[in-house]
Amino acid sequence: MSARSAALPIDGRRFLIVGGASLVGSTTADLLLARGAGRVVLFDNFSFGSRDAVRHLVDDQRVTIVSGDVMRLPDLLAATEGVDGVLHLAAMMTISMDRDPWAGLDVNVRGAQNVIEACVVRGVGKLVFASSNAVYGYGPGVAGDLVEDTPFHAAGAPPAAILYGASKIVGEQLCRQAHQKRGLDYVVLRYSTVYGERQHYRAANALYIVETHDRIKAGLRPRVIGDGAETKHFVYVGDLARANAMAFEADASDVAVNVSGPEPVTTLQLVELVCELTGTSLRPEHVAPEAGKVRLTSGGAFRIDHAAAERAIGWRPEVGMREGLRRLLAWRDQAGAPAAAAE
Amino acid sequence: MSARSAALPIDGRRFLIVGGASLVGSTTADLLLARGAGRVVLFDNFSFGSRDAVRHLVDDQRVTIVSGDVMRLPDLLAATEGVDGVLHLAAMMTISMDRDPWAGLDVNVRGAQNVIEACVVRGVGKLVFASSNAVYGYGPGVAGDLVEDTPFHAAGAPPAAILYGASKIVGEQLCRQAHQKRGLDYVVLRYSTVYGERQHYRAANALYIVETHDRIKAGLRPRVIGDGAETKHFVYVGDLARANAMAFEADASDVAVNVSGPEPVTTLQLVELVCELTGTSLRPEHVAPEAGKVRLTSGGAFRIDHAAAERAIGWRPEVGMREGLRRLLAWRDQAGAPAAAAE
Repeated sequence: MSARSAALPIDGRRFLIVGGASLVGSTTADLLLARGAGRVVLFDNFSFGSRDAVRHLVDDQRVTIVSGDVMRLPDLLAATEGVDGVLHLAAMMTISMDRDPWAGLDVNVRGAQNVIEACVVRGVGKLVFASSNAVYGYGPGVAGDLVEDTPFHAAGAPPAAILYGASKIVGEQLCRQAHQKRGLDYVVLRYSTVYGERQHYRAANALYIVETHDRIKAGLRPRVIGDGAETKHFVYVGDLARANAMAFEADASDVAVNVSGPEPVTTLQLVELVCELTGTSLRPEHVAPEAGKVRLTSGGAFRIDHAAAERAIGWRPEVGMREGLRRLLAWRDQAGAPAAAAE
Repeated sequence: MSARSAALPIDGRRFLIVGGASLVGSTTADLLLARGAGRVVLFDNFSFGSRDAVRHLVDDQRVTIVSGDVMRLPDLLAATEGVDGVLHLAAMMTISMDRDPWAGLDVNVRGAQNVIEACVVRGVGKLVFASSNAVYGYGPGVAGDLVEDTPFHAAGAPPAAILYGASKIVGEQLCRQAHQKRGLDYVVLRYSTVYGERQHYRAANALYIVETHDRIKAGLRPRVIGDGAETKHFVYVGDLARANAMAFEADASDVAVNVSGPEPVTTLQLVELVCELTGTSLRPEHVAPEAGKVRLTSGGAFRIDHAAAERAIGWRPEVGMREGLRRLLAWRDQAGAPAAAAE
């Protein structure tokens, strides 16, 4: 530990959330405000972000919503002025990387560079960078306990998935390089698949939850692609928001840790859990993969270990899959499931 | 194998070499011309490329030298008009990625996208994409036989090295994606460290050869950083030029294979071989790593397997380390060692 602390307390401080009009961004903003943040700036270009996600925040005098783009460094230089901590969430995921690799690499690579540049130039106290378990890759090589030095397995995975994972590896290393050369304090959090209230239709893995729920509500049998035996490891958005806050608060810097829920599930278990929570008598049906649609499957059973996060920032997940799903389904029933976003 | 052949014979065909004013580019141009290529366009922005490297080619009526930049798609669209095969070499390596990650990611990611875009738009018959064994990463995890589905090991490596490796993974996947979505035929060759006549000062690994030679000529003991026990696996530039040509000629597409020399060496063996070939009585001295300088070391002994290249394109290396070094040193003695390039 260096003599200078990398801890950034929340109370009274000013935070910028890049990609703030999102599931993770809005939930983290709620938490930062509840913990006494002096200001929270939500920066988004609203291409995927949604005004709905932040509508409940606009009456808080401490909240500012800025329409800007990570591809425009001046937007970020303006938004980081006087800011103590930055949470960088803006990214394209695998489905977008499949549709438009130019935009995807722009946002995930150049966007990360611009955010880091703004943080360094403005002397931001700490950057929390949202990475992904995609840095461990895909396929049968991804098996057992995934710890932070697990290599990136790519053989046989769809190009868009590999591009996404590689772009997150690049982002992490840009943070490390900025720490080594320019003194930027940062924590990388490798999110596993996020789910929770305000769930959208953009994450390939979380689609199973919302699509299963949609089908049950329409009186249709939920679908499982293949045998559903492959592992998925989710994290509840409220737990993730705590991890973001704790990454600021902890005296940790220059570190990358997993943030994952208590335990993994299989796809089939997940679909059955949704069935059980809705009380439906509909049973899942197994279907063949659709040609041309990016779905990620893995051969091996794996578990994303989160012990390092506890050591680095004192975090561990609190909400299990059943309780998290119950909250998500309750929100969807109450809010009305949103129309599928045209990502 | 598809009914349509992906083979592109050399004789009478037109080739573009992007990053052509280089060690690999000029040697490959020599070979393509010797095999009857109808036209060879050498495209370079001459930031690292050198007029010296292509001076011997300018009198050949079939050769065109184009000053252009991979960051400018119009330059590439103009250069690919009427071209049958493209060899994409232009890239920043680890040392550049350390000095300027903005330029490095521009060239390696956006540059690759521009080259691929031009190939697709112009209906180029085949793209040969120069990747690197850097896609297997660095450190103790890189051990044993490195075959093409070896994962990317990054833990503990310098950020710039990981950025370089990740940028090559991205380039490979952009080729795959263009093949799947737009029908581009391509072969990815994962070069191991290249050495040979016209050797430059830009590749971190090959620096050992030229720096050892320079010190011996100056009457100084050659230096080995640490114990010199780590593995390096080189490939002679003439062998690499044959691999490039054979990748065009073979009925192979949508494949990525290693191209490496017959056997790896350790750093110490390499330095001792240079000593032996120069006939010096100077003995290597072991020194500590210089702070702040990017040097790549690996913990495990490894060998870059090239059996897949033989299966895919019929290639195997012919020139061993001793003979290749003998040629390189003879060229340096005759040409006078060039001044260290200011990369």
